[in-house]
Amino acid sequence: MKIVLDAMGGDIGLSVNLEGALMASRSFSQEDTIILTGVRSEIEKMIKDKRMSFGCKIEIIDAANNVGMGDSPTKALQEKPESSIAKGLDLVKSKRADAFFSPGNTGVILAFSLVKLGRLRGVNRPALGVIFPVGRHPLMLDVGATPDYKPENLYQFALLGHEYMKIMRDNDKPVVGLLSIGEENSKGSVPYQRAFDLIKQDKEINFLGNIEGDDFFKDKVDVIVTDGFTGNILLKFAEGMVHWFKVSFKTSVKPLPIAILGVILSFPGFLGIPFFLVSIKKLLKKVSYDEIGGAPLLGVDGVVLIGHGKSNPKAVRSGILNAKKLVEHNFIGELKGIFENRRTSETD
Amino acid sequence: MKIVLDAMGGDIGLSVNLEGALMASRSFSQEDTIILTGVRSEIEKMIKDKRMSFGCKIEIIDAANNVGMGDSPTKALQEKPESSIAKGLDLVKSKRADAFFSPGNTGVILAFSLVKLGRLRGVNRPALGVIFPVGRHPLMLDVGATPDYKPENLYQFALLGHEYMKIMRDNDKPVVGLLSIGEENSKGSVPYQRAFDLIKQDKEINFLGNIEGDDFFKDKVDVIVTDGFTGNILLKFAEGMVHWFKVSFKTSVKPLPIAILGVILSFPGFLGIPFFLVSIKKLLKKVSYDEIGGAPLLGVDGVVLIGHGKSNPKAVRSGILNAKKLVEHNFIGELKGIFENRRTSETD
Repeated sequence: MKIVLDAMGGDIGLSVNLEGALMASRSFSQEDTIILTGVRSEIEKMIKDKRMSFGCKIEIIDAANNVGMGDSPTKALQEKPESSIAKGLDLVKSKRADAFFSPGNTGVILAFSLVKLGRLRGVNRPALGVIFPVGRHPLMLDVGATPDYKPENLYQFALLGHEYMKIMRDNDKPVVGLLSIGEENSKGSVPYQRAFDLIKQDKEINFLGNIEGDDFFKDKVDVIVTDGFTGNILLKFAEGMVHWFKVSFKTSVKPLPIAILGVILSFPGFLGIPFFLVSIKKLLKKVSYDEIGGAPLLGVDGVVLIGHGKSNPKAVRSGILNAKKLVEHNFIGELKGIFENRRTSETD
Repeated sequence: MKIVLDAMGGDIGLSVNLEGALMASRSFSQEDTIILTGVRSEIEKMIKDKRMSFGCKIEIIDAANNVGMGDSPTKALQEKPESSIAKGLDLVKSKRADAFFSPGNTGVILAFSLVKLGRLRGVNRPALGVIFPVGRHPLMLDVGATPDYKPENLYQFALLGHEYMKIMRDNDKPVVGLLSIGEENSKGSVPYQRAFDLIKQDKEINFLGNIEGDDFFKDKVDVIVTDGFTGNILLKFAEGMVHWFKVSFKTSVKPLPIAILGVILSFPGFLGIPFFLVSIKKLLKKVSYDEIGGAPLLGVDGVVLIGHGKSNPKAVRSGILNAKKLVEHNFIGELKGIFENRRTSETD
């Protein structure tokens, strides 16, 4: 198995990615390869300087470090065919690698994936999925790849998400919900009502029906189907809210040192406070996106996972291992079978 | 001035509403009237039992207490013309009252408002607005009245929200943002791109442009324009997240008593802990919807405010006072002038 890691992607870049690859390599066999795309001299120097010893083969494909996190996808497509993203996806396209992971620019990865790998037959539009670390930790898709959508797109997202979570959760019957504004189908918007019917008639999908915004936080579904417009707004809202809570909480704990000081001055109280602080820290960590790993780009003809720009080595590790798991379970082959049997409309 | 309060609405109902009316009445003059619609005998008995003495006139209009929080709007329209909601809106329709407030069933109030009051000329669809108690405390509209929308609806929502916040914030230039998925207009969905252009060409609106999900938490806008599908999902997601944080936080503070016990055993620490707990309580209160008061139903020909079913007396008070403020500023008259000048399409 060969997994490509875009070694230059992300806010910090090389050091985080190499450390993540090192951690991931311990879960690979010696026959496997992690292919690093990026500036060869920099990669080789860092591996040497840090005396990194990997648990699998490492291959370096020289590529440019020229895609910034704010770059426009259209411009990158035209001007940056030598980038670590483009070259990494070339490897998947030509079957020299089985999967691609990058914590880089999402829009650029999406654009190159569509151009180089193309869509799976039967999938009209791709979807980007994100795990929400609450409730049953559901996968929500799409979160931005397809803001203008049709009912058929939502149905295809349900199939893609269902298959993805089957593998990721080792569960043959992941529960799928359609994000709408009322339990009864009649309450949704017209395209969502139609999507409901399409998903419901597919006996392969374990469809719970409509779910609402507060159902994210309940132990209810594994897959949340939405369109790229609603999903993107919701994702950014959630990120903003988590950030706001953290900042507000820090303001709230400002008086805490006075409390702690008093406690330290008097031994008995000292026993409780650290225990309390650990609990709070755990809570804030739970809602942090650092530990999720990659967001799958679904519907393209290849395994592509995109990490958060702020990924730490652990997140890079988990992105690479998710890619590995998808390859082991023949994810793309399974999807091809599913859409072959269900092909609805090739036009869009 | 005469403000109608649906005395039977809400999860608890009469007692909360009467206490809220009592609090609100202190801000009215002796010439003003709060009209209570509901079961006359019950209302009179409670006023007498609790020895309530109001700061303005009180009038009771006998009506049935027969609309539950889960009732279907269609059914209520057909079968419950004697309800406290229907009779209250009749008073506004016939100009015997200036405004209506109810913490009752949102769907039923919406349905009766549309049937009895009708839409303002030039407004194709109504919008329900909700204040988000973060950032600049923006009004988001629509949150569920119009899940199937056109660009013109979003433009009309911008006008409605702009005028509402002008009055509520005593600010001639409230800032309006369109909730989308990127700052540039080209990133939104097609109907949102068209709505952007419509709002932008209207020189009366202080339009900032597109905003994203995390901008709720920044000091950026007073009005957030969205459609009823996205807005409803977002609202319920936010409510779910606040609830989840509260529950998680309570679990986190479970070890706190051990800490406090130690502290109490040793006087110095006792000085800090209460100060800390007050801060945390303030934080959780900040994100509580109890203190917001009414959500305006905009675009109908009359002042209608809907309170949360879980409203406490303070929330009922603030709903009534918001209604009063809108009447004082001739809200409906102003809106009629605005839409008269801008009438786009009467068809929908």
